[in-house]
Amino acid sequence: MAKTTDIAADVARLGQRAEAMLAELGAISSDPSRLVRLFLTPEHRRAADLVASWMRDAGMTVTEDALGTMRGHWRPEVKKRFLIGSHIDTVIDAGKYDGPLGVVCGILAVREIAARGLDLPFGIDVLAFGDEEGSRFRSTLSSSLACTGNFDQSFLSLTDNDGITFGDAIVAYGKRVEDIPAAAYDPAHVAGYIEVHIEQGPVLEAEDLPLGVVTGIIGQSRMRVTLKGEAGHAGTVPMRMRRDALAGAAEIMLAAEQAALRSEFDGMVATVGQIEALPGASNVIPGCVNFSLEFRSTTDEKRENAIQQVKTAAQHVASRRMLEVTFEQLYGMNTTACTPIMQDQLADVISGLGYRPIRMPSGAGHDAQVMAQLCPTVMMFVRCRGGISHNPAEFASESDMGLAIVALTDFVEAFSKATSELVIPGRA
Amino acid sequence: MAKTTDIAADVARLGQRAEAMLAELGAISSDPSRLVRLFLTPEHRRAADLVASWMRDAGMTVTEDALGTMRGHWRPEVKKRFLIGSHIDTVIDAGKYDGPLGVVCGILAVREIAARGLDLPFGIDVLAFGDEEGSRFRSTLSSSLACTGNFDQSFLSLTDNDGITFGDAIVAYGKRVEDIPAAAYDPAHVAGYIEVHIEQGPVLEAEDLPLGVVTGIIGQSRMRVTLKGEAGHAGTVPMRMRRDALAGAAEIMLAAEQAALRSEFDGMVATVGQIEALPGASNVIPGCVNFSLEFRSTTDEKRENAIQQVKTAAQHVASRRMLEVTFEQLYGMNTTACTPIMQDQLADVISGLGYRPIRMPSGAGHDAQVMAQLCPTVMMFVRCRGGISHNPAEFASESDMGLAIVALTDFVEAFSKATSELVIPGRA
Repeated sequence: MAKTTDIAADVARLGQRAEAMLAELGAISSDPSRLVRLFLTPEHRRAADLVASWMRDAGMTVTEDALGTMRGHWRPEVKKRFLIGSHIDTVIDAGKYDGPLGVVCGILAVREIAARGLDLPFGIDVLAFGDEEGSRFRSTLSSSLACTGNFDQSFLSLTDNDGITFGDAIVAYGKRVEDIPAAAYDPAHVAGYIEVHIEQGPVLEAEDLPLGVVTGIIGQSRMRVTLKGEAGHAGTVPMRMRRDALAGAAEIMLAAEQAALRSEFDGMVATVGQIEALPGASNVIPGCVNFSLEFRSTTDEKRENAIQQVKTAAQHVASRRMLEVTFEQLYGMNTTACTPIMQDQLADVISGLGYRPIRMPSGAGHDAQVMAQLCPTVMMFVRCRGGISHNPAEFASESDMGLAIVALTDFVEAFSKATSELVIPGRA
Repeated sequence: MAKTTDIAADVARLGQRAEAMLAELGAISSDPSRLVRLFLTPEHRRAADLVASWMRDAGMTVTEDALGTMRGHWRPEVKKRFLIGSHIDTVIDAGKYDGPLGVVCGILAVREIAARGLDLPFGIDVLAFGDEEGSRFRSTLSSSLACTGNFDQSFLSLTDNDGITFGDAIVAYGKRVEDIPAAAYDPAHVAGYIEVHIEQGPVLEAEDLPLGVVTGIIGQSRMRVTLKGEAGHAGTVPMRMRRDALAGAAEIMLAAEQAALRSEFDGMVATVGQIEALPGASNVIPGCVNFSLEFRSTTDEKRENAIQQVKTAAQHVASRRMLEVTFEQLYGMNTTACTPIMQDQLADVISGLGYRPIRMPSGAGHDAQVMAQLCPTVMMFVRCRGGISHNPAEFASESDMGLAIVALTDFVEAFSKATSELVIPGRA
């Protein structure tokens, strides 16, 4: 009973502190009316400085790499490092939890570890990445890519809405492009990586659970589907003589939905988020339609199968309706699995706190999918209200966040005991 | 054989003349790179003046009403008038046949009638309306409405893209708003109305026929359908937890298509020409979709039934998908039937020229639907290539146009013999 009471007190205290820190960070925005904090901007600078001050308060020394990733080092003298990270950049009109929660949890967990007087076989680095959302340059995940030595040089010539290049923005931030390679960790010195993040989905809320163990970050294929038929007068072309591109698109969209539902237990989702019908007049039959189509699933092969099903269905639709259909692949990313032993350890920790350790894929992309190239990696999800993210209405409760920090602290302790057993995938 | 040869020569001569006149008129545009001729503009003035010169050449006196409708009067001393009309305004980036063909046919038919020395029981007015397309003020059919005494006073406050009101445009054109009522014909003095127009659809071409008898102008209902669901992250919301407004819209669009196909022999068509999915990002489930939906058919009751079927289907879709659906009626116009005896006379004339007189509804709106409120009315369709209209690629052949003028001349002669038998609908 004493332990339970202690935990409840810890949860309350840590949750309250996390909320206060997130509120302070959430007030740093380029726009007074909404939260906008883009990579390598003055707001990035202010947010990183605030994070650095918290890191120092938690007993860490701080360094900053060439992409502005703020790194807090606990016990910097230890060569082996365990990494806890997330990002402090935001989308436009963001909520204050997506990203910053993971950084705040890392800092507060280090404080707890220090307070518990744990003797770990590694030091800890808390990483505050500056470019996860890709809102400024469409260069998603560049900060973590630099940490793994996989920074894509072609990013440097990307431009923001004002025509400023990524490379010039680095210089304007007071950094040097030639220092990017030095941001890379040596895999031999990294024990593992964990990232705490709001779920950004409705599953934990629906299951009435505060925390989830992420099994992997689901792969995705993003396409543009174009249908060409023939525009015509809405009053004068009989139904059977039409080559209506939008009616064809409607069938293909429903076929995509059906293909995803057939594999729903694989966590597969299919989404059409954008659609355009041309010429776009109420009294003209659409002669051309294009729409976005993306598939995500935890199994790359099932995703490829589903896409193939949709393409086959689309060919039938096009041939029956005398349309031309084309699929253009815009983006593809394979599934990244979280390290099984770390999943098990995290599940044990959550069980130990009295909660069912639900396992779930992440449908959204995260820095963890990049860090998994470097070292054993896992993610922990925190329930968020209504599954809402990328929106000012984004919300995680103090008690869930406090519990996440306790779980993270417990996890680092549990992981440290098993570190020597771990084999880094692909490097053993 | 002699007669056939004569007709062939007439067709060739008249078709060539019509094409030359249409080319001259088609060169009058506010934009040198495309055909744009809007109501009450300097281009309207120039086109009307050109039409007036042709009317005079054909032996007519001319007058102009308060809306700039140019009227050519053949045998102005006769009180009873037979009307032949169409419009000389265009859509933006128009073809040169839609509208002007009917005016040119009227003028050339009057020439033929005069040349044949026909003794008719009425004089003829050729009407060149200036506002059928509604491209400038969205005040469709205002010219013919004025001729029937049904001008809508609320049109006067409509504004064009430059903020100029309809009323001010009348004044700038040198006319007076207070003279609009004087544009109305006295029904007692009107024998009938005929309008020649390109089909704007593919039926005559598919049937390999040059001319068609229009049975009526089909009624239409134009709606805006709005679906509200819930936006969400495309990766994190499982398929079964989605409230995807676009997937719901796809089902409703297909239900509308099915409803129209069930009544296709009634000439029913359903069209979704505009669609918008919000927020409109490829990685966000659409939370709101709105689309245009219009139904046209020759039977108002069947059209209403079809719309009811779609509404019922939409409610099922919305309830299954946890969406809200609303239908907003934007525009409604009942079917206008062409006068049966005039259809029969026109069919006989076309048969007499050696062609099967196909009867077909007009899926597009025309001044004839307004004129039918005034007097017995019929329309004749002329084949156009590919069913294309409202497009620079619009095309009718010289031989089809020449045949239309011969048929129109023959029709006026046939109609004159039967005039006394006619009963004006709703006025008898």
